[in-house]
Amino acid sequence: MQQRITSKAIYKKACGVIAGGVSRNTLFRLPNPDYVSKASGCYITDIEGAERIDFANNMAALIHGHSFPPIVEAVTAQLRKGTAYTMASEIEVAFAKLLIDRVESLERVRFVNSGTEAVMALIKAARAYTGRAKIAKAEGAYHGTYDYAEVSQTATPGNWGDINNPVSVPVANGTPQSVLNEVVIYPFNDIQKSIAILDRHAGEIACVIIDPVPHRVGLVPASTEFVQAIYNWTRKNGALMVFDEVITLRVNYGGAQEIYPVKPDLTSMGKIIGGGFPVGAIAGKEEVMRVFDPHETKLLFPHSGTFSANPVTMTAGYVAMQHFGSEVVDQLNALAQLAVSQIQEMIKQVDVPLSVTGAGSMFRIHLSKTPPRTYREAYQTEGVKRWMNELLDFIYYKEHILMINTLRNCNEIN
Amino acid sequence: MQQRITSKAIYKKACGVIAGGVSRNTLFRLPNPDYVSKASGCYITDIEGAERIDFANNMAALIHGHSFPPIVEAVTAQLRKGTAYTMASEIEVAFAKLLIDRVESLERVRFVNSGTEAVMALIKAARAYTGRAKIAKAEGAYHGTYDYAEVSQTATPGNWGDINNPVSVPVANGTPQSVLNEVVIYPFNDIQKSIAILDRHAGEIACVIIDPVPHRVGLVPASTEFVQAIYNWTRKNGALMVFDEVITLRVNYGGAQEIYPVKPDLTSMGKIIGGGFPVGAIAGKEEVMRVFDPHETKLLFPHSGTFSANPVTMTAGYVAMQHFGSEVVDQLNALAQLAVSQIQEMIKQVDVPLSVTGAGSMFRIHLSKTPPRTYREAYQTEGVKRWMNELLDFIYYKEHILMINTLRNCNEIN
Repeated sequence: MQQRITSKAIYKKACGVIAGGVSRNTLFRLPNPDYVSKASGCYITDIEGAERIDFANNMAALIHGHSFPPIVEAVTAQLRKGTAYTMASEIEVAFAKLLIDRVESLERVRFVNSGTEAVMALIKAARAYTGRAKIAKAEGAYHGTYDYAEVSQTATPGNWGDINNPVSVPVANGTPQSVLNEVVIYPFNDIQKSIAILDRHAGEIACVIIDPVPHRVGLVPASTEFVQAIYNWTRKNGALMVFDEVITLRVNYGGAQEIYPVKPDLTSMGKIIGGGFPVGAIAGKEEVMRVFDPHETKLLFPHSGTFSANPVTMTAGYVAMQHFGSEVVDQLNALAQLAVSQIQEMIKQVDVPLSVTGAGSMFRIHLSKTPPRTYREAYQTEGVKRWMNELLDFIYYKEHILMINTLRNCNEIN
Repeated sequence: MQQRITSKAIYKKACGVIAGGVSRNTLFRLPNPDYVSKASGCYITDIEGAERIDFANNMAALIHGHSFPPIVEAVTAQLRKGTAYTMASEIEVAFAKLLIDRVESLERVRFVNSGTEAVMALIKAARAYTGRAKIAKAEGAYHGTYDYAEVSQTATPGNWGDINNPVSVPVANGTPQSVLNEVVIYPFNDIQKSIAILDRHAGEIACVIIDPVPHRVGLVPASTEFVQAIYNWTRKNGALMVFDEVITLRVNYGGAQEIYPVKPDLTSMGKIIGGGFPVGAIAGKEEVMRVFDPHETKLLFPHSGTFSANPVTMTAGYVAMQHFGSEVVDQLNALAQLAVSQIQEMIKQVDVPLSVTGAGSMFRIHLSKTPPRTYREAYQTEGVKRWMNELLDFIYYKEHILMINTLRNCNEIN
């Protein structure tokens, strides 16, 4: 009789060869993560045979769910022609055009390999264009693992300081003090306080980064007034306004930025635009994107990358976005809104102190009667986090549903 | 009659949608790069039908050449089971074990999406472990595009300063002065000068990074005495010695580090370990890699990544490395040595002032009678660069051979 290997046994081996047993802490789960045997559409099956509904979709990266047949077909064909060259691929051009046609503020694109790389390129491009070192970001906002981008992402009541002058809090031990000094932290959606903080660094700031629907801040969209105020400030002070849309591009056909009357100078993208393969992109105004252009006499930002714009990612991403047209975006958003209204109805009926925030096809459930407006309001105590983990375990083991650990949902088409 | 589109026409479109028309400056070529229609083994064919021998192999990332059948087959099967999950994959564990079994200094691994990400994680891990901010790197050495890692990669006679105290020269415009202050530049393979420079920053340095065969420094291996001296210095001064083997892992079965009596604390990897897909890895001593481990009471370096360790990259990388066993490594290295000895014989016969450097399956031709020993000796003037470009064009257009722009060759198995 064949002895079947268990996830527990694999994880035991994993802990002997991988730091922590997982290459991504998002997969970490006690007593052990489960190992996938196959995934298709909205279903994911582990090697023990347990099938779950997947609301996580590789951290919101799979807009069509798993093994989307048009992507499988197109990538299978590309594989036989090669996966990466020291020469150019036509699909990269078509894909860049598709993104530009979709998102109004985009005039030129560059592809990279992850959201982290996209945000790093975004910040370096802003520095290269302005010749300035400092960046401003919202307290609590997640922008990947580039040192500057991650400052104050995990700030706590014990170290975040006065809201009128938030402390730059490191994420990783050993983060240079010089990194913290280059990052200005503003409170999301608070115009008066944010402008006062930015004013103190006027003339030094290369860019103000906005995640238009920052999930760790509470998944509340940036207000139009806030975006307008930041835009005006950047025009007055020679800085760029840049949007990190790695997660939020899915919110509207033209990205979360579509609804604002003013547009960012640069935008970082990732997640869904890879069709399930490693991807990142930076794009924006031609004048700013020229920092990347080797035709220029003085190339301000020399930028390359062995796997950037590889034809497999480009093919998968192109197919994924082609199948995510404006009608499909609306349909997906309507599905999410249906779920939200049903949850809200249920909250009302059983009268529990819960609230829901979100935009487009993303929503998040909070353990408070009124939804949080800021990172500090959305901040979860250790007790709440433990309770949330118990709830997630219940949902995962008993209800057979895989969710992201903030109770954020990113549903997919199929 | 069907009008066939030309590379020139595609590139014209590309310039309207991609900054500089290419997402990687390595592909930039005047008047235009050519677009690939297919690639197989050591052959790459553009859309005009011109077939070339590929000595570049996506910047040395494809150890088996293009469309290696075992990789195509394994990835085709994986595609139907999904490309990326918010759950774990068994192949990640097997692949980590394969790398650990191969490279003596590795005890724990973490995967990321590119060499740039690997070096960034390497530096952040060294900082997290030591609690120190500064890093030391060799003048001219390439380690990807993370700000700290790229300092002085493109230093010139006009800005590199005294060799006893090399200037930290930025690559990108707007690089913060604070970044430059955190990077200590040492002259490769020069024990006396390097130790004197390091001594001036003793107690502040988190790690000394060594590329054991740095191609931009001249593709001369680090001497055993140099590696031993750096190792001794790091033991005395509470710093880590780390190797960047993103490019050099191919040199021996156990990496370029195999030949040295002392081993690095951490190693970054990339290129060939992805089997043609985006990849990076950081690995090393269990004690140091523990900074990544979420089991620890205080997690020193929280690290994740949407696409890190995705099962497609893991599958392709595993198959690629399985097929790059020690006999195959020797066979490939023998092929390269045969080429080198024939080139050297030819240099002698026609009596031209050329020389060859390299290690394992990598070699580089220099326009000098004696091979350069340092970055400053290997530095090419604008005149030499122009001449090199003309030569590369000749080889590309007339001899139908694709090479890397430093006349570096990285041959592949098939």
